[in-house]
Parts: sequence; structure tokens; C-alpha cells
Amino acid sequence: MPVVIVELWEGRTVEQKRALCKAITDAMVEHADARPDALHVIIHEVSKENWARAGVLGVDRTDV
Amino acid sequence: MPVVIVELWEGRTVEQKRALCKAITDAMVEHADARPDALHVIIHEVSKENWARAGVLGVDRTDV
Amino acid sequence: MPVVIVELWEGRTVEQKRALCKAITDAMVEHADARPDALHVIIHEVSKENWARAGVLGVDRTDV
Amino acid sequence: MPVVIVELWEGRTVEQKRALCKAITDAMVEHADARPDALHVIIHEVSKENWARAGVLGVDRTDV
Amino acid sequence: MPVVIVELWEGRTVEQKRALCKAITDAMVEHADARPDALHVIIHEVSKENWARAGVLGVDRTDV
Amino acid sequence: MPVVIVELWEGRTVEQKRALCKAITDAMVEHADARPDALHVIIHEVSKENWARAGVLGVDRTDV
Repeated sequence: MPVVIVELWEGRTVEQKRALCKAITDAMVEHADARPDALHVIIHEVSKENWARAGVLGVDRTDV
Repeated sequence: MPVVIVELWEGRTVEQKRALCKAITDAMVEHADARPDALHVIIHEVSKENWARAGVLGVDRTDV
Repeated sequence: MPVVIVELWEGRTVEQKRALCKAITDAMVEHADARPDALHVIIHEVSKENWARAGVLGVDRTDV
Repeated sequence: MPVVIVELWEGRTVEQKRALCKAITDAMVEHADARPDALHVIIHEVSKENWARAGVLGVDRTDV
Repeated sequence: MPVVIVELWEGRTVEQKRALCKAITDAMVEHADARPDALHVIIHEVSKENWARAGVLGVDRTDV
Repeated sequence: MPVVIVELWEGRTVEQKRALCKAITDAMVEHADARPDALHVIIHEVSKENWARAGVLGVDRTDV
């Protein structure tokens, strides 16, 4: 009965999220002996001013 | 000095959150030797397009 | 279908954890419209060298 | 540049974890426009006395 | 390659977040042997109705 | 009253953790208007078989 939390840039479509959650669930069932009925996938959408890599905010990067 | 993070559907009222945080805090003090003054309860409100169970998004479920 | 994550000092007994998880689950059902069957409570036990308050590690505090 | 945190029962083999992390990474790249080089998958292994569903600890369940 | 998640009141400016992420990144590099290129700092902005201390919601406190 | 969670390779010394938590706390006070007395820094130590980057476990990497 696992829980998967995905920290993700905001802006993905519902269609992308639907496919993503399905694929992660399938991976958990296939590789981690998870039963799907109590398996949660939770997406935290994070804006570009709330995420930094290498000390630089997403709003200040030109490569993302 | 614990921290409790609650991943929750969006849509609860302030009154519900007030009662929930009070009850969780009381549970921590009673059962986990926590002192309340540095005890945090944080609610992450998650929309139905950002949460899947059994691989199916909340927006696609009819039973939630 | 919520998920509750508890960051807690290590050292609680199984009996304390049993009572804590039951009480938090009851609080979620009563105050947050949660259905218990897919409600998870996860405890992260953290040692005193991995937790600081006010910038001071638990191993260096005399009041905890 | 997403981060995926997996809360999982302890006891999976390294081989299972290797396959799981690979499959989740592939899912993120295919469905969430993620670039793999800064994509982290972190597994939190949780013991059965630290995880409850429906208010019942894993150590007290007979069906998991 | 660490990940740092900051649970924070909402309301900080972009300038504050920029300085905060830079300072946390520098601390990780200096004190935790982290290499900055794959080091993420993620801010979760939490509203005052979604955070309680000592069992009291931020919206009900007069001292924050 | 923020909470900072650090996901970190296992293996740092207590001295490194002490300096890290102090530096992160100072950064929060200076840049995020945090008051230190209720500010928590929590370190999750993660083993190299529980962390993947670019789909490759830490135990399988030669550059970390």
C-alpha cells in the first residue's frame, strides 16, 4: 500500500497527469509488489518561483 | 516536537480544518509524548486532478 | 482518501504508535470527511541527530 | 526537473528498487516532459509498525 | 544530490525566495558535501488556514 | 514558523549536520522572516540503494 508524491513544475495538462499516474501505478504494481487499490499518487504542482536548482530559481533560468 | 503533514482533497472549510488540527494535536500530545508548543500540523490541499488512487485520477472517479 | 505523514522522534513504543494512528484516523474521519479504508498514516522516525529546532540539534538540547 | 518520493514497505530487493526507479523515471520523461539528468527518485522504506491503513498498523494486519 | 523542501507561510516575495534558495544551496554545498548542479530547493507555500501550531490555525493566531 | 526537510545521502557526521542545520536556520531567519524558536530542520538520511538520479540508483553510479 504505497504512496508516491511527485514534485512537479506546474503546467502539465490533465491528460498528461492521467497518463503519468497510470504509468507510475503500473510501475509500482510490477516492480514493488504493490496492490493498486490502496495505492495513491499525489502531484504537488510547484511554480517556477518556488523551485531552485543549483541555487537558481526557475523564473531566473533560461534552460527550463 | 513533531510535525504532521496532511495530504487532503481541497474543499474543507476553515471550521473543519480548525477542528482537525486541534484533534490531531491532541492525539500527538496524548499518544506520542509531544509538547504542543512546537507541534506543527500542515495541510496540503490537493485538487482532484492531482491525486490518483488505483491509477485513476480523482476527476475521473465517480465514487469520491 | 487522505495521507498523513508524521515526523516524530524515534523511540515511541508500538503501543503508542497503535494508539496514535487510530486517533489520527478517527480525527480524519470525524473532521475531514475521510473514509478510513484508503486512509494512510505513515510515521517517519527521526533520530535526535537528524532534527534541529531553533538551529540546535536534538542531541545538543537539554530540554527534550 | 522533478522529484518523486516513494513511501514504501521495507523489504524490497535492490533489484526491485533498480527496476522501479527506472520505470518511474521513464514514466516522468514520457508523460511529464521531464529531463532525466536532474530527476530524482527517493524511496522512504517504512516498517510495518510505522504505517497504518484504516487506523490499523501493518504489524496488526493479516492481509498485507 | 540532495533535495530540500521548505514548508513556508505564503507571502514571501520573489526576491526573498531567490535569496533563501541561494543561501540554503550554499549551506548544503559547504556543510553537506553536496554538489550544486543536481541540488533542488522546493518551497511549499502554505496559507494561514492550512497551518496550525499548538493546535491553533494561523488564521486564529494573533502573534504570527 | 517554517519546517525544512532535507533529503540527504546517509553518511554525514554529527558535526556536519550541526553546522548544516545552523546555517539553514540562519538562512530562514535572514531571508524568510522566520522566527527561530518554532523552526524545525529535519534530515531524512537516504541510503544509496534508495535514491536514483537519471533512473540510476546511487549504488550503481560511479560519480557520487
